Amino acid sequence: MYDPTKPYKKQVLDLIKQTWNTKYVSVKEGIYPVFERKFSYSEVDHTDGIGTKGIYHWQQKTFRNAVLDALAMNLNDLILVGAHPYKLQNHIIIPEDNQEIILEIIENLKEECQKRNIAITGGETSVQDNIKGLDISLTVSGFIKKPQINSPQIEDVIIGVKSSGLHSNGFTKIREVFGDEYRAEFVKPTHIYSDTIPPLLEKYEIHGMMHITGGAFTKLKDNLFNANIRITRNSILKPQEIFYEIYKKGVSDEEMYKIFNCGIGFILSVSPKDKDNILMKIDDAAVIGKVEQGSGQIIIESAFSDRIIKF
Amino acid sequence: MYDPTKPYKKQVLDLIKQTWNTKYVSVKEGIYPVFERKFSYSEVDHTDGIGTKGIYHWQQKTFRNAVLDALAMNLNDLILVGAHPYKLQNHIIIPEDNQEIILEIIENLKEECQKRNIAITGGETSVQDNIKGLDISLTVSGFIKKPQINSPQIEDVIIGVKSSGLHSNGFTKIREVFGDEYRAEFVKPTHIYSDTIPPLLEKYEIHGMMHITGGAFTKLKDNLFNANIRITRNSILKPQEIFYEIYKKGVSDEEMYKIFNCGIGFILSVSPKDKDNILMKIDDAAVIGKVEQGSGQIIIESAFSDRIIKF
Repeated sequence: MYDPTKPYKKQVLDLIKQTWNTKYVSVKEGIYPVFERKFSYSEVDHTDGIGTKGIYHWQQKTFRNAVLDALAMNLNDLILVGAHPYKLQNHIIIPEDNQEIILEIIENLKEECQKRNIAITGGETSVQDNIKGLDISLTVSGFIKKPQINSPQIEDVIIGVKSSGLHSNGFTKIREVFGDEYRAEFVKPTHIYSDTIPPLLEKYEIHGMMHITGGAFTKLKDNLFNANIRITRNSILKPQEIFYEIYKKGVSDEEMYKIFNCGIGFILSVSPKDKDNILMKIDDAAVIGKVEQGSGQIIIESAFSDRIIKF
Repeated sequence: MYDPTKPYKKQVLDLIKQTWNTKYVSVKEGIYPVFERKFSYSEVDHTDGIGTKGIYHWQQKTFRNAVLDALAMNLNDLILVGAHPYKLQNHIIIPEDNQEIILEIIENLKEECQKRNIAITGGETSVQDNIKGLDISLTVSGFIKKPQINSPQIEDVIIGVKSSGLHSNGFTKIREVFGDEYRAEFVKPTHIYSDTIPPLLEKYEIHGMMHITGGAFTKLKDNLFNANIRITRNSILKPQEIFYEIYKKGVSDEEMYKIFNCGIGFILSVSPKDKDNILMKIDDAAVIGKVEQGSGQIIIESAFSDRIIKF
């Protein structure tokens, strides 16, 4: 629970209260907010944080972006199972007690949650001088009206949706190759796909999806049966400049696609008949490959060289 | 979600799966564990972590104790609203990737959850070299059959239940006063009261409760109307030796009771008629004070001196 001894507890509560009455849940005040849901579907919970990207957000005071990153890391994953987010708890770690920063974080979280009908049912703010930077981790709950099966089919078209840049993965690598150098790209927030992708699931034959976070090009393997996914280099979705810079610092093609999204933040495996309609509905999306007969491999034609990577 | 690129993901899943079928919830495997609850009560979620105590747990490799601390910080708070825990998500931050440690943490969490019918519906393991020590934060969900009102009544007897020592609060102060010195008490786990207190709520008139964590003696103030709580020094619940050591290092009486539990981990405000029955049912409990007419003050006769502290 938010620390009752802190002078800003009331302000935090006043902010999160503004998220409490949604069409999915009603929340009542008490020692802890008590809630009731207005549905009875199956659910998933999802926990994720911003990891060491929090070092840069703290340095640059980009707290709004930190909130967007924490939300994206959870909301984008929930899409994969067709889950609709409706409430969350937050856990914020900051290295020094600072009312202004805490309220800025909660204020931004509140705004983003209000937009999406997500109730903030509580959380914890932990002041810890053993961390360099900040961490925001969220546990987001989603309900599932119609379960989404993740199983790309042979002949499917692979559609990639552009990332906003580095997103929230690979920052241990970033710090390894950049050292003390800083780039504005380090604090750009992760794109949130949950505002555009879910409506498509109801209309079109989408057989598979993947949120491209750490190791995510390899993640697709789990659900491939007698099929390969081939990502071609001749698509219009090129990696952003920052990825070429990382590559030039000596990171291998294979590592690039294992650690970074390389310009592609979300992937859909769709029936060829629905391809054009889907492309019309999403900005910055393009065909980037296909599903073909095979033995469960991910084959990527690197955008950085003429190499072909196989996972 | 647990990182799919890690070799130990399958082992983590195999462990948490053992918690999935309880009398309160059923969980099915998928990309993420999807669950359905077997009840329709109101609920609360509660998030808390172990804070900077994680520095000592990491140094001493006391991972089981770290798990008990994380559980205690959530389960003990849930008692206050009469909530029965039934599922959780975990967020573990460790400074280096170490399969053995991660599995030891999850294994212990699994065991403790199985004992208590708590399903682990997922979590995240984050390897972050920007933290010194480890952090385990949990988001625990509980259902509420019968809401618990927290409102101590004039004439109530205050029963204290012994703490196991420092519990999980005040470690920033501990490090301030002890510097590099180490005491075995620093890694002793927080006592979990949720196994003994909740059954009492159904039988006896318990008007108020408090989990004594950071600032907790002051927390009682929120629910006092025209009443004071007086904690007397002539009770058998004395602070453990470690608290006298801290006091002798120059921490004031007031700070002691604001930051530390001083030997009392949980407090009940009960009807005089039920006092003896309750004392018989809980180990290491004693009358430590009373509720009297007043203006909402907490009056504590310090165990460390002849001073009287007022919050």
